[in-house]
Amino acid sequence: MTRFRLTVEFDGRPFMGWQRQAHGPSVQQAIEEAAAAITGEAAVLHAAGRTDAGVHALAMTAHVEIAKPIAAERLMDGINAKLRPLPVAVLAASQVPDEWHARFSCIGRRYLYRIRNRRAPLALDAGRAWRVPVPLDADAMQRAAQVLVGRHDFTTFRSVHCQAESPVKTLDLLRVTRSGELIEIEAEARSFLHHQVRSMVGCLQLVGRGKWSADELGAALQARDRAALGLNAPPDGLFFVEARYPDDLPIPNSR
Amino acid sequence: MTRFRLTVEFDGRPFMGWQRQAHGPSVQQAIEEAAAAITGEAAVLHAAGRTDAGVHALAMTAHVEIAKPIAAERLMDGINAKLRPLPVAVLAASQVPDEWHARFSCIGRRYLYRIRNRRAPLALDAGRAWRVPVPLDADAMQRAAQVLVGRHDFTTFRSVHCQAESPVKTLDLLRVTRSGELIEIEAEARSFLHHQVRSMVGCLQLVGRGKWSADELGAALQARDRAALGLNAPPDGLFFVEARYPDDLPIPNSR
Repeated sequence: MTRFRLTVEFDGRPFMGWQRQAHGPSVQQAIEEAAAAITGEAAVLHAAGRTDAGVHALAMTAHVEIAKPIAAERLMDGINAKLRPLPVAVLAASQVPDEWHARFSCIGRRYLYRIRNRRAPLALDAGRAWRVPVPLDADAMQRAAQVLVGRHDFTTFRSVHCQAESPVKTLDLLRVTRSGELIEIEAEARSFLHHQVRSMVGCLQLVGRGKWSADELGAALQARDRAALGLNAPPDGLFFVEARYPDDLPIPNSR
Repeated sequence: MTRFRLTVEFDGRPFMGWQRQAHGPSVQQAIEEAAAAITGEAAVLHAAGRTDAGVHALAMTAHVEIAKPIAAERLMDGINAKLRPLPVAVLAASQVPDEWHARFSCIGRRYLYRIRNRRAPLALDAGRAWRVPVPLDADAMQRAAQVLVGRHDFTTFRSVHCQAESPVKTLDLLRVTRSGELIEIEAEARSFLHHQVRSMVGCLQLVGRGKWSADELGAALQARDRAALGLNAPPDGLFFVEARYPDDLPIPNSR
């Protein structure tokens, strides 16, 4: 068996999410079926993150094992040809050692959340951003966001369906910037809880509208209670940006 | 009658182009019908530019005359509500004097053309960029582009369907920049010929691939012959960015 690392871009709109579902299309299933069509083998994909329905990826990282001898480039081109016309594309493929794991070797994940702060509906960015028609104070959002950075119990910002063992996570970066009507929120951590980014963004939006202060955001965090959540932002604006691996070397335990 | 200036964003994919067509949907028709539904009057839209099928706009400028008294903001919100779920949105609306004309008062038009220079198909940018899988030298494209800047007979870069009186135009800016796999080409002029931007981009792509030199691009321009055109780029990557009006004042002749 040869293990291949795949970098995947997708538009989440037509999918129930990354993970294979019994009752609807998923990105995982689409790629697994494309790979199986190329190799004639059942293929199982493992990914750095499992995105929700409607969430997008600029560069999700996954791996798959294949018995049939095949060059990485041919695998990539073959999967891409079979994926057509779905909005999923393999951007890169490379052989990795058997110990390399897209999920367990991953040491950092980065997300981007895009808000369009305007009155008019979205034409070009429909499904790719959250439209917020009332004026948002992005500077206040950026200041308040720093309350969430660091090691905390993020129970308030965690979906009831979250399967993580612990609600304690270390948020390395949460940065809010504005360029015209576009507000971008970048989030970085080793790993995130289910719905964590959307829940943090939803509460930052309340800060931006002046409904919450930074102190109230801090109190919501301290409450460690899902009931203290102000708002969960819609999936449309969320993009999985990047998965990081140690020194970009494939085997974390080999060093 | 009150004249309203409208700023319009649209995704060109579902449309035969801006202009009303007998046999297919157009952006103009969609907005005219939305306006008519709000006001109960037939509405006729005039625009700064007429984009082709599949071409997009970040901010097309148009005007429309309406007899019924209505506030600009209510007109905008009403049209937007009726346009749903089409990917067209009125970003701004304001009253302008009767002499103000979206097409004839316009003194500058700006386009953006986006190329994704990569092997993999486009997932997030499908229909919004031209994918060129072979490596392009963007610096060479930028240098060669300067051959086209200035006042020239652009017959080579003009569609046979072009209705302009003269093929002589003054190109104020043609700038090629690269950021990772994304190559952006900005073009500015008082006005353009039909297909001019796409034809210029198509030939610059030949330069980027090393198939044409800057001198060959210049020779194609000098030929003043459509047969000398190297390649017409697809509509997918083209965006109408902005229409400019004198000092942003509504009446060019009133100063």
